[in-house]
Amino acid sequence: MLRTGIAEVLRADLPIVRTASPGGRPLIYLDSAATTLTPEPVIAAIAGYYREVSASVHRGKHMLSDIASTRFEQVRAETATELGAAAREIAFVPNTTAALNVVASGLRLRPDDVVLVPLDVHHSNLLPWRRTARVRHIRLNDDATVDLDHYGELLRGGPKVVAVSHCSNVTGRYAPVREMARMAHEAGALFVLDAAQSVPHGEIRLAETGADYAAFSAHKMLGPTGIGVLYGRLDELDPLLTGGGTVDWVDLDGARLRDEPHHLEAGTPHIAGVYGLGATLDYLRGLGWREVAAHDRELAAELYRWIEQRPHLAPLGGTGADGRAAIASLRLPARVDADEVARLLSDSYSVMCRSGKLCAQPLIDTIGDGRPVLRVSAYLYTTPDELRTAFEALDEVLSMVGVPVG
Amino acid sequence: MLRTGIAEVLRADLPIVRTASPGGRPLIYLDSAATTLTPEPVIAAIAGYYREVSASVHRGKHMLSDIASTRFEQVRAETATELGAAAREIAFVPNTTAALNVVASGLRLRPDDVVLVPLDVHHSNLLPWRRTARVRHIRLNDDATVDLDHYGELLRGGPKVVAVSHCSNVTGRYAPVREMARMAHEAGALFVLDAAQSVPHGEIRLAETGADYAAFSAHKMLGPTGIGVLYGRLDELDPLLTGGGTVDWVDLDGARLRDEPHHLEAGTPHIAGVYGLGATLDYLRGLGWREVAAHDRELAAELYRWIEQRPHLAPLGGTGADGRAAIASLRLPARVDADEVARLLSDSYSVMCRSGKLCAQPLIDTIGDGRPVLRVSAYLYTTPDELRTAFEALDEVLSMVGVPVG
Repeated sequence: MLRTGIAEVLRADLPIVRTASPGGRPLIYLDSAATTLTPEPVIAAIAGYYREVSASVHRGKHMLSDIASTRFEQVRAETATELGAAAREIAFVPNTTAALNVVASGLRLRPDDVVLVPLDVHHSNLLPWRRTARVRHIRLNDDATVDLDHYGELLRGGPKVVAVSHCSNVTGRYAPVREMARMAHEAGALFVLDAAQSVPHGEIRLAETGADYAAFSAHKMLGPTGIGVLYGRLDELDPLLTGGGTVDWVDLDGARLRDEPHHLEAGTPHIAGVYGLGATLDYLRGLGWREVAAHDRELAAELYRWIEQRPHLAPLGGTGADGRAAIASLRLPARVDADEVARLLSDSYSVMCRSGKLCAQPLIDTIGDGRPVLRVSAYLYTTPDELRTAFEALDEVLSMVGVPVG
Repeated sequence: MLRTGIAEVLRADLPIVRTASPGGRPLIYLDSAATTLTPEPVIAAIAGYYREVSASVHRGKHMLSDIASTRFEQVRAETATELGAAAREIAFVPNTTAALNVVASGLRLRPDDVVLVPLDVHHSNLLPWRRTARVRHIRLNDDATVDLDHYGELLRGGPKVVAVSHCSNVTGRYAPVREMARMAHEAGALFVLDAAQSVPHGEIRLAETGADYAAFSAHKMLGPTGIGVLYGRLDELDPLLTGGGTVDWVDLDGARLRDEPHHLEAGTPHIAGVYGLGATLDYLRGLGWREVAAHDRELAAELYRWIEQRPHLAPLGGTGADGRAAIASLRLPARVDADEVARLLSDSYSVMCRSGKLCAQPLIDTIGDGRPVLRVSAYLYTTPDELRTAFEALDEVLSMVGVPVG
């Protein structure tokens, strides 16, 4: 039933899952919402840049610089094509957090301007807005989906911006972003999308969401660290950083900014990261974006099926895999320490899960009970067998700490 | 005479210099002030992170995250040791430009505060200050060294900050930073150092310069792209970016910042880059920092010797290699287009040099004639033979375009 084909293809390119851990058990990596594993072709593209090019972009007239610049701009164009956008709408940034800071600071908001954010946003889509404007939280329904009625009410207050997680890094719930974007625009607000958890799971056509701005990171989708993408109406953003690369002309009194997207790319960029991002997009395109999305839906169904068989596990946002990525955050029974469970799962069973408040503390404090949760997040390389083994390991760990697991 | 030992060791780890170019000539890479070549052990450390760890840092309790976090903080500590600093004084940032923006924005300057910068600063150490304060330029002497008398005069105006290039990316001249820092402090000003061109050439003991803040990038010292270091009194800086990783606590109204340096590292960092930086420091330590500096002085002597034999080449800042890194920017004879020369050197002779205004346009316009220059910048892997071949190639190119070269 499950599209294990994708996982098998990918696992052939991931030596780490074929190497036994120090404890002799194979690695089961379920912390993909933090950072994914990286397949060999992506590593090869990064190493290839360093081995065969290793020159800077844009400002050089020599051959190696020309090779680097051409590939750099080609990856920008390919990224744009995947998103349904134009190359000038794509800026390369260090990560999603940086992108959201660029947008929040670049829009010239005033301290009294209102920004709406649902309660499930990541800190990186909350704190930058708090610095530049007044944030109001959109309530969630019991299943942790956005309360669209409350959203509609808040929109009547005339916010300047609505900033949303496309997919929650805690509950895995997708927001109805097309509808939310339409509502925002009708109310005269800009719509900004944190797509860090949605693009990796196949939702690449960001231009079709209606978002004015959107951001994601390569390292959550098989790609390198240190490189992210900011999409949108970049010409309307003041740069957050200035310096080399952002200007056409500088004299003793002033400077003329370069056109978008270059005015947002200060200093020597992470060129190897852009090479790696290019390989990542090639790789995912090779697997097929529709297949990627379908595989994730099936993994989510499998994940929540295992959870639903265990009533002592309370997933934030409730059970049911519909409209969810393969991400689940579990509130463990009282007196069970999620950090300790994560450590035992890792050290005794080679199962890597995250614990904590997942950079979404307002959500954890509101729909959880304020204690750290245990997050299980699967990705393309995850197999059904791994999920079964992981939940059996969790049963054993919970038994050890005194929880009756049936 | 020349310490070719270092170059030979390094070249064994650089397949690119042993591979003939498409034109059949071996690569002569003289654009190192933009980005250096990258040796195999650095590439191996980056690939090793992706192959064997590929997990995020800080917030995970599982084994892979623990391995990543431990190495990440170990590289921070090793960086601090090299600089003569403490780990909490080291933040990882995308590049030097980002670091200087963090300092310029983080110091809470007022629009009327004065910042002094010598005329030879890179745009990245000029434009961030212009946004937050009033910049006044320190004049240069005829040899492009800082005019310390003028500096002394300007200090009497009570500037808040002095921001200096440790080594000019155009002229290769070192600034007398210890003396300048002392003078700044006596005048009650902070001293900020752009060390992007000095650390790679062996000037790693940044804490001993007296600088309050200093910044450099790994990609200019054999290391990866996308990773730089900000050193200094980080606890006194407001963060430029906020979001995941920068806070200890977030609720519906406020947040508590993490202690330095973490409050400056927003979002998932470039972990592979930090692994690469660690390998870079190991590599340079293996060569020996003193040897690195001595090798560079000898390369600079060799470089300026070839230039001095050619009176039609006018190096900005004059001739003479004393107090200079192996960087020279040449004003070519009237009507000779530096961009075209760079292209011919590359395409016909496999010699890679940069041309342009080198992100230091106020300098080029003042001590040059405003036209683009041709920059020749050597590094540890450069051999005397390569310099000779490059200048012979330049002779031929200049002859082709009608310059009598003797």
